Amino acid sequence: MARIAIIGLGLIGGSLGLALKRSRLRDVELTGFARSRQTRDKARKMGAIDRAASDAADAVRDAAVVIIATPIAVIPDVMEEIAPALSEGCVVTDAASTKAQVMRWADELLPHHVNFVGGHPMAGKEQTGIDVADAALFEGNPYCVVPSVGAKETAINTVVGLADLVGATPVFMDAEEHDSYVAAISHLPLVVSTALFSLARDSAAWPEMAQLASSGFRDITRLASGSPEMSEDICHTNAENIIHWLDRIVVELRRYRDLIRGEDDEALFKAFARVKLERDAFLAGGARPRRPERPAEAGVSLSDLLMGHWAASRTREAMKAIESQEPPPGRPQRSRHRPTRER
Amino acid sequence: MARIAIIGLGLIGGSLGLALKRSRLRDVELTGFARSRQTRDKARKMGAIDRAASDAADAVRDAAVVIIATPIAVIPDVMEEIAPALSEGCVVTDAASTKAQVMRWADELLPHHVNFVGGHPMAGKEQTGIDVADAALFEGNPYCVVPSVGAKETAINTVVGLADLVGATPVFMDAEEHDSYVAAISHLPLVVSTALFSLARDSAAWPEMAQLASSGFRDITRLASGSPEMSEDICHTNAENIIHWLDRIVVELRRYRDLIRGEDDEALFKAFARVKLERDAFLAGGARPRRPERPAEAGVSLSDLLMGHWAASRTREAMKAIESQEPPPGRPQRSRHRPTRER
Repeated sequence: MARIAIIGLGLIGGSLGLALKRSRLRDVELTGFARSRQTRDKARKMGAIDRAASDAADAVRDAAVVIIATPIAVIPDVMEEIAPALSEGCVVTDAASTKAQVMRWADELLPHHVNFVGGHPMAGKEQTGIDVADAALFEGNPYCVVPSVGAKETAINTVVGLADLVGATPVFMDAEEHDSYVAAISHLPLVVSTALFSLARDSAAWPEMAQLASSGFRDITRLASGSPEMSEDICHTNAENIIHWLDRIVVELRRYRDLIRGEDDEALFKAFARVKLERDAFLAGGARPRRPERPAEAGVSLSDLLMGHWAASRTREAMKAIESQEPPPGRPQRSRHRPTRER
Repeated sequence: MARIAIIGLGLIGGSLGLALKRSRLRDVELTGFARSRQTRDKARKMGAIDRAASDAADAVRDAAVVIIATPIAVIPDVMEEIAPALSEGCVVTDAASTKAQVMRWADELLPHHVNFVGGHPMAGKEQTGIDVADAALFEGNPYCVVPSVGAKETAINTVVGLADLVGATPVFMDAEEHDSYVAAISHLPLVVSTALFSLARDSAAWPEMAQLASSGFRDITRLASGSPEMSEDICHTNAENIIHWLDRIVVELRRYRDLIRGEDDEALFKAFARVKLERDAFLAGGARPRRPERPAEAGVSLSDLLMGHWAASRTREAMKAIESQEPPPGRPQRSRHRPTRER
């Protein structure tokens, strides 16, 4: 039977399995592997996978599509382990929060007869593990698709099709763009959230402050309760971009400091009012790509997915959504020196 | 009939009315005033007040308790307006987000035959207005009680009793402490949230970033959608404390920058792991004062509330909760120069 393999069965791997199982995908066996036997058993019992493999190489054998959903730090090990077992023409994708380093690992470690297309579903929770996996996790959220240089168009369509099947909206970009953008809207918030908590916690007045902390403080520090391993991996593999945005937020905070210190009441009010208006517009969804209409609900087979015809129209729409945007006057500055440290 | 007056019928004033109406308080008329006739009518129809007054002075006439729940900027005007109409011995409280300036206004503008006890229910939403008023807004949240120098013990017990009736946990502190603590856990998060949004929004790559922004970005910038008037008022009346904490968060962000830039993987991991553990402990509620047990459900009359016996045990418990805490080795630094600008 046609097979999709998922390596790593945590929140993301487990949720992808659950979402694919309840999607229109038909006649496909989902094979899964996680290091912990308990996790594998749980994933099978929950219905996130059909079969638990005994190791990663076993999981990917004869699979037409392989999804690597492990922590970033172990992705190179997984790639080395599965490389000899990957079928000719197999589509390999991942779900890591940073992309440039992963693309380099794929280029170095995967055989050239497979097609690597990076993926990053923009969804998460601060809890981790198969226990919090959720078939609806990706519904309505963006799913970054980052093709490698050599990936065939059908392979790209396959990953776009996967994103569509789990309810997400595929968005194309290159790895450098991806890492710069998520540094600003995802990794900087993670560090700031953590710093806001540690600053208050390390204060001598914390016992009194903790008594007063209400929903505002809890929400703004929510990201500080994420997995420390994942936070460390993100900082390691996207350090230059995160540092760039940390330097910029310090400048931005100084701008607000000057407004608060200053005598111009109107300027301070206007700053808050403008942000409120712009955020309300953002929430109203003006900036979010419209999800392409789904065709009439019919089953999709793995060969539909692999042939690429099925998702090709979705790929064209996703490309068009990107191209139709106002050309930005410039890109955020990024260093040319990207981290290559391995672990 | 015994009367409580609420001046200002927005989210907080309206929610206090709704919460008091569904509380155990019996045989009390709630009189309300808001500048907008539409708001007054709405508040009456929703049942947040029993009677809409034609002006603030009319609302407080013969009231035993007066709650000022207007924006901070108009509190001095309200105090001037109601001062001649306040009954001898009347208990006056407020619901403003900052306390030192409000206590000074009360001292200057209210007659000395009334008892002012500052209040700050630690609850809110980013939306404002009577339409989002909610009887459950205060349930389980802290309610700061800040007695003025001359306030009688029975008046303090009355405000503690009010906090208890709306489901909140009274917490005592002085105005300077209050403003320093909320600067760290409420006002700094407000400014940081706003800065995170404006930084991303003003970036040339915003159209692409907005496509990727998911729940993490939306949550951490939630406070940026609050009322700009309220944000400005907060910054005006608590500027020195907010600037103090802005300077400290910049230092804290530099510490994380150094960790990310550095080569010590273990130190970065440990920083994230420690914050996660401490935040999980905070959420588990170790630091939050236990809400005193409610006595058997029986009706409470306004004279019970005013006599102070009813809430006296709650007052003692709230005081004890504060005193039993580990004495902090020091207080956060605060400037001696507090804002006195009026508007």
